[in-house]
Amino acid sequence: MTKKAAVLVAGSWGTALASVLADNQYAVQMWTRNEQQANEINCNHTNPRFLPDVVLSSAISATTDMEEAMQDAELVLVAAPSHAMREVVKQCKPYYRKGMLIVHATKGFEPGTLKRMSEVIIEELPDCRSELSVLSGPSHAEEVIQKSPTTIVIASYNKASAERTQDAFITPYFRVYTNPDMTGVEVGGALKNIIAVCTGLANGLGLGDNAKAALMTRGLAEMGRLGMAMGAHPLTFAGLAGVGDLIVTCTSQHSRNWRAGYMLGQGKALQDVLSSMGMVVEGVKTTQAAYQLSRLYKVEMPITDQLYEVLWNGKNPKTAVEDLMGRMKTHEMEEVAHNPNVTWME
Amino acid sequence: MTKKAAVLVAGSWGTALASVLADNQYAVQMWTRNEQQANEINCNHTNPRFLPDVVLSSAISATTDMEEAMQDAELVLVAAPSHAMREVVKQCKPYYRKGMLIVHATKGFEPGTLKRMSEVIIEELPDCRSELSVLSGPSHAEEVIQKSPTTIVIASYNKASAERTQDAFITPYFRVYTNPDMTGVEVGGALKNIIAVCTGLANGLGLGDNAKAALMTRGLAEMGRLGMAMGAHPLTFAGLAGVGDLIVTCTSQHSRNWRAGYMLGQGKALQDVLSSMGMVVEGVKTTQAAYQLSRLYKVEMPITDQLYEVLWNGKNPKTAVEDLMGRMKTHEMEEVAHNPNVTWME
Repeated sequence: MTKKAAVLVAGSWGTALASVLADNQYAVQMWTRNEQQANEINCNHTNPRFLPDVVLSSAISATTDMEEAMQDAELVLVAAPSHAMREVVKQCKPYYRKGMLIVHATKGFEPGTLKRMSEVIIEELPDCRSELSVLSGPSHAEEVIQKSPTTIVIASYNKASAERTQDAFITPYFRVYTNPDMTGVEVGGALKNIIAVCTGLANGLGLGDNAKAALMTRGLAEMGRLGMAMGAHPLTFAGLAGVGDLIVTCTSQHSRNWRAGYMLGQGKALQDVLSSMGMVVEGVKTTQAAYQLSRLYKVEMPITDQLYEVLWNGKNPKTAVEDLMGRMKTHEMEEVAHNPNVTWME
Repeated sequence: MTKKAAVLVAGSWGTALASVLADNQYAVQMWTRNEQQANEINCNHTNPRFLPDVVLSSAISATTDMEEAMQDAELVLVAAPSHAMREVVKQCKPYYRKGMLIVHATKGFEPGTLKRMSEVIIEELPDCRSELSVLSGPSHAEEVIQKSPTTIVIASYNKASAERTQDAFITPYFRVYTNPDMTGVEVGGALKNIIAVCTGLANGLGLGDNAKAALMTRGLAEMGRLGMAMGAHPLTFAGLAGVGDLIVTCTSQHSRNWRAGYMLGQGKALQDVLSSMGMVVEGVKTTQAAYQLSRLYKVEMPITDQLYEVLWNGKNPKTAVEDLMGRMKTHEMEEVAHNPNVTWME
């Protein structure tokens, strides 16, 4: 008998992961509020708004009926934007059954509450805690759907659930690794979008690869600082969901967050940038959440602070990037971590 | 009175750093064996083989006479290729005086002995140990000479020397940070060239940004493993001379090492690639040295191993990259570090 998977909301990442599941012999039913999109997926096997020029597997169908999507699903993948996560989980709750594997693939915090996505899901579906995983890592949807080799991480509180979810997704082109650090994987995936917007901003202002690498290095340090304050393991930031995802998001042509920053750096207004993207730019909302989290946890986040000033207080992007490049401490170990156990030999 | 600096060998990086020193009120004399190059620098203020379309400061001159170059120098920058370092230091030795700041900016190991560049310099000039620094970090010469914002690290055994060298190089566009970890800064700078060749190879074979980020993430882990076995501090690999330099070398259009790998991935023979570059490709020699070091220190370096097989044993690049993508461990923490203190909650 064919296994069934539900994919909640049909954005580009949900659709790419639906394709991976279809390659692994799942019958995948995607849920979307948009009837036209459901018809396109069912009749034409396309999702043109999110993944133009892609023909989807015939094992992927779509519905606007949540009950139908959830029915008989062994695995439920939630790939909603961070601001919509709670609402989508609430909608699927009546059809949830204990034992379903729940996987989320959303990179951000809940606006207002500042909660990680797994915290939001567990609040709404407390029974799913042991079967819940997060999927993250350096993975542009556009490459995954072309079966270009990709590596990702599945993190869960429960080892058996992580391994069951790993089995569900692993294919020769989609390599899946497990990690017990849910917090680190979620925080890394969320915060790297801030750094991506900021490197785009720097490139839009005409700065080069040297400056970009400096911002990414400092960005990784600031991601790790907040992550550790929130309970994450530092090694997670040295892995696929930390530095790996940071690299792909800051340096790839496919990155929406980098592109949004680039347009801001070229002088476009935030509202114009967001409306021209046609898709959610998680890094913009995440900057606001991380700004608040840095105060809550008393962690220095100079890149987040500067981007917050540009996005929400009208600071000139050029001044912000100059402030970032100029204000670094003079001793690198102070920059990378706060209490380094490193001393001069002489 | 003007301060004088000597720059030994006039490649692209030496010339870019000479420009930084010239911007800091140094009279810079470059030493080169090539009389025609010395004439071009002195008469036309150009170094067309290494930095085409660049006009050099009139504070930069050149000579083929080592005694003249070293005379009255307060600071001596050595930017020779790794295989030529010992010979260049031997040549300057008769004119060395105690108290001169010695800075090297070479990324590699000495072929055969596998020694770090600072070890080679200290063997030839034992008196300079306290005044010796290494300069490293994400810094393409082509951008530095355009005064594009750049951040780098100066490491030394001696704090006062690191700070004097920092003062010599720091400008508004060239931000210099100090770090006490000479070993880590040298190992990071050398090993990242291996990963750059390997990501070029993957891109030359048609792999995308997801695969490239995966290789870079694994590459950083393998750099850190060898570095720590050699006595480096792990935080250095999270800083500018580690992940920062790795990023710029693997993702920038200016990177010779990436370009060499790209041509190999497209099926060109190693000898043809090297002769077409016209400049030293440090990553090729470093692969051989790191392969030997990994055995000496008993450290797993799967990327280095695969690249070694491609470069020196005729392994098919496609098979090598497939082996790298396929053979990862299934648990990420095993991949990132060897003895992680991370456990599953449930």
